Amino acid sequence: MYIEKINSPADIKGLSVKELTVLASEIRSGLMNRLSKKGGHFGPNFGFVEAAIALHYVFDSPRDKIVYDVSHQSYAHKMLTGRKDAFLSDEHFGDVSGYTNPEESEHDFFNVGHTSTSVSLACGLAKGRDLKGDKENIIAVIGDGSLSGGEALEGLDFASELESNFIIIVNDNDMSIAENHGGLYKNLKALRDSEGACECNLFKAMGLDYIYVSEGNDIEKLINAFSKVKDSDHPIVVHINTLKGKGYSPAEENKENWHWCMPFDEKTGESKFSGGGEDYGNLTCDYLLKKMKADERVVTMVAAVPTNIGFTEDKRKTAGKQFVDVGIAEEHAVAMVSGIAKNGGKPVFATHSSFFQRTYDQISQDLCVNGNPATLLVNTASVYGMNDVTHLGIFDIPMISNIPNLVYLAPTNCEEYFAMLDWSIEQDKYPVAVRIPCNGVIHTNAPVDTDYSELNKYKITGQGSEIAIIALGDFYQIGEKLAKLIAEKTGTVPTLINPRYITGIDTEMLEALKKSHSKVITLEDGILDGGFGEKIARFYGPTDVKVYNYGLKKEFIDRYSVDDILRENHLMPEQIVNDVL
Amino acid sequence: MYIEKINSPADIKGLSVKELTVLASEIRSGLMNRLSKKGGHFGPNFGFVEAAIALHYVFDSPRDKIVYDVSHQSYAHKMLTGRKDAFLSDEHFGDVSGYTNPEESEHDFFNVGHTSTSVSLACGLAKGRDLKGDKENIIAVIGDGSLSGGEALEGLDFASELESNFIIIVNDNDMSIAENHGGLYKNLKALRDSEGACECNLFKAMGLDYIYVSEGNDIEKLINAFSKVKDSDHPIVVHINTLKGKGYSPAEENKENWHWCMPFDEKTGESKFSGGGEDYGNLTCDYLLKKMKADERVVTMVAAVPTNIGFTEDKRKTAGKQFVDVGIAEEHAVAMVSGIAKNGGKPVFATHSSFFQRTYDQISQDLCVNGNPATLLVNTASVYGMNDVTHLGIFDIPMISNIPNLVYLAPTNCEEYFAMLDWSIEQDKYPVAVRIPCNGVIHTNAPVDTDYSELNKYKITGQGSEIAIIALGDFYQIGEKLAKLIAEKTGTVPTLINPRYITGIDTEMLEALKKSHSKVITLEDGILDGGFGEKIARFYGPTDVKVYNYGLKKEFIDRYSVDDILRENHLMPEQIVNDVL
Repeated sequence: MYIEKINSPADIKGLSVKELTVLASEIRSGLMNRLSKKGGHFGPNFGFVEAAIALHYVFDSPRDKIVYDVSHQSYAHKMLTGRKDAFLSDEHFGDVSGYTNPEESEHDFFNVGHTSTSVSLACGLAKGRDLKGDKENIIAVIGDGSLSGGEALEGLDFASELESNFIIIVNDNDMSIAENHGGLYKNLKALRDSEGACECNLFKAMGLDYIYVSEGNDIEKLINAFSKVKDSDHPIVVHINTLKGKGYSPAEENKENWHWCMPFDEKTGESKFSGGGEDYGNLTCDYLLKKMKADERVVTMVAAVPTNIGFTEDKRKTAGKQFVDVGIAEEHAVAMVSGIAKNGGKPVFATHSSFFQRTYDQISQDLCVNGNPATLLVNTASVYGMNDVTHLGIFDIPMISNIPNLVYLAPTNCEEYFAMLDWSIEQDKYPVAVRIPCNGVIHTNAPVDTDYSELNKYKITGQGSEIAIIALGDFYQIGEKLAKLIAEKTGTVPTLINPRYITGIDTEMLEALKKSHSKVITLEDGILDGGFGEKIARFYGPTDVKVYNYGLKKEFIDRYSVDDILRENHLMPEQIVNDVL
Repeated sequence: MYIEKINSPADIKGLSVKELTVLASEIRSGLMNRLSKKGGHFGPNFGFVEAAIALHYVFDSPRDKIVYDVSHQSYAHKMLTGRKDAFLSDEHFGDVSGYTNPEESEHDFFNVGHTSTSVSLACGLAKGRDLKGDKENIIAVIGDGSLSGGEALEGLDFASELESNFIIIVNDNDMSIAENHGGLYKNLKALRDSEGACECNLFKAMGLDYIYVSEGNDIEKLINAFSKVKDSDHPIVVHINTLKGKGYSPAEENKENWHWCMPFDEKTGESKFSGGGEDYGNLTCDYLLKKMKADERVVTMVAAVPTNIGFTEDKRKTAGKQFVDVGIAEEHAVAMVSGIAKNGGKPVFATHSSFFQRTYDQISQDLCVNGNPATLLVNTASVYGMNDVTHLGIFDIPMISNIPNLVYLAPTNCEEYFAMLDWSIEQDKYPVAVRIPCNGVIHTNAPVDTDYSELNKYKITGQGSEIAIIALGDFYQIGEKLAKLIAEKTGTVPTLINPRYITGIDTEMLEALKKSHSKVITLEDGILDGGFGEKIARFYGPTDVKVYNYGLKKEFIDRYSVDDILRENHLMPEQIVNDVL
């Protein structure tokens, strides 16, 4: 066992290639231990073991600085930089996050989780070095999937302006999360097929020097290549061809399914997550497939995360030309749906709340200034969504809802969600965004409205007096509980309101509430700053009505428990009652 | 005169090449008439006259659809599509905007003003066409400067996935607004130098077919090239080499100065705008040059708009390696400043409020999640800024200020601005954004604070009672006038507060105000939704204090008069007094 003696990269410098190869298999055992029990990014980490070893063998981290794109391939790096216990020893799983994290180690330079940022971040490290007159190596590691992102392409284009050391490792495993999309992947294939000799070369066309390593899982070949570019006096790309999931045959064979995994049985590869019940991914996919079959103008678009709305490979095939995966290119996707809508199509673009952050300008300029009737489906926009600091879904309301011309809808249950989505696809007046519910699939027997064209009309779902509760989207169910509790405590039934529209206020209803209500409570599943409740507070600012806004504090939170966060933000009905009464 | 008979593209189809060449010179006269008297984009329009004619000669607009990138080169297109009077006849100047505009003409498909969007928007038109089974030509026109933008690169990469007609005209005049930056420009040069024959070809590396036209101002050659690609059954790039400013020697000789012009004397080329007095561009440039000279770690960054903070060519040379223009690549710029700050540099990145919209995710993920101490300078973030619908600066507060970890400062005068900027550069704790004042250079004799490290401490600049006015940034001067008027009308002097921090509230001060104030008025130079005042309304929501938020309505406004907008939004002190008293 070598891994037990590795506490820092210095500890591998004396090992032979043979010993490093044994170390690679020990690292894979550690990865397997953690991933089979806890889940996480499988394929990216299994594919990058040799490269991580070779990088630390050749370079001198942390003086030399390695920036991992997405950093979902950084587990081996973590094991080599003092964090092996988080993989080898179950009780230490919680010691590390799934991404690079400067709070964990001086060998990590950024908290990263979004794609396509490594080249630009590393350009910054290089410029900082040059300003100070230092000489360390700066290395960006970027996967082929991330290359289609605008920020990565901007970074590659700019990199050649650096007239100093800068090394870009392109980790090409011929896969994004699903298959790659975009013309540049034809060029990567031509480069792989020609062992890097193809004259037409994306990287050279961006002004960069270039070398190719066909055996990206061969430690010796990687050490030779990295040694060649170490201390380079100019920017250079090292294009390495690796095997995603290398070393575990289920992952090598089904790369998409093994990009990320839930806990599984190592022997069979079977997931220990039983799934269970309905989920909005499959429901949304089924709805859209039906819709597309009925109307050839409907088109579903995703940006490299097709299964986030249930589009597994078979469903994508069923949809045919009416399904478009643009690759990691959210900006392009939003502009493209505006164009599709302009030319008579009915486009729906879905991605995670956190990834819509890439598209503020496109939502504003390409879509909303033009008022084209495209639909945006905002997924995991919720405290109940992803809980890594880099994937939080709680900022979409301030980001999206303050853009003029947009209609942003927050359904409170399954039936309302599909009614809103259907209305959005069929109407031709507005750009519409719909928040996919994230607090479980909740059904209603009550009839739901099918027409949302009269904008900003809130719905009173329980008429009462004294206190009104305006409970938006996913927090409607908290509103229901709160209403019951208030009625119990005070003997007076409060009014419960489903506002439905995030992007505007129902001035008529709010005005009418004044007559018989002295307090208004707002609830929203997102940060309060710039959000929905503050608009209600503004409306009632000059009046005698007291307003209490409930939602989340403006902060970056990491690997949190939902209950803790709800409690910290006084979102338990008992807490609210204590505050307000 | 041919131009007088041109009311639609059909009217040029019968003309000979010789006649079209005369038409080109008539169009230039029209451009000169408008631009010398009204100002606007000069170089881009003078350079694209022949191409616009050839496009309309070969294609059948509006069935065939042309999408112009930025659309600052679309004046000749406007003259050929029924809008010649807006150029030939002074009293019709107001008939058209400076960009494509679907409200003006069926030949315009999008309101465009930001760069790098045409390929993606046009991809959408093409996909919409394909879904319906139609057959028209879709043409995107994009300048070389726009190619460095992430959205454009995403679009080019995706375009090859369209298995149908799609034509991308790359209008290469070897210039951005200033000189180009980025490695891809070396490839464009190689392509120009080899007449398109160079094997290494960015467009081919993106999977696209390609042809080259060296004489991009020769109508006949352009007609031949466009005819070749018309009805193409696959995506193809037509790379044309044009001369920016073609036909007016001052503009041909000094391309940067003539990218955009104020009214000028046609004979001498001299601007009729006398300049006059101080401006924040030059003041900021002088300050930064001094700062950079004193400290080699300070670096100024821009994204293709260097003169927006006064960095003309001579100043850029003076700054040397401490000045970086990343080209049109705002995303990259924000990530890069995070990296520079992480590695010991002191970066300042400046651009327009409207262009920061490109960087929401980079401000959030690359910068603020990581908490690196970079400075963002937000220019023309104001109702007093640019007034085209595509360049509005009034959305930055909701967009930027609700991102955690960021400190966003709003100075109220010149001295405070530079004190804040200096503090930001010297501190090492926070990512900081500073709003450059936009309501004229206003000086103060009062001492200004130099330390802003105690966050969210507002400043009482006039102690009074009953009414408190919290007047943010550029609207502080409205606050001063309002305070005076309230004192006159009521006999009671109100309290005047300069909040300085946009990103947080001074709970201690707001709490203290309650004792002797019953009304709080907020003023902010931006839209109210998601903005600053609503946070004050939220704070006082559960109390007896009445809050009145003043700012702008959430809407896209176009070519407005500031006075009209201020009046419509009740921002005149007399209006506020009437509302509140």
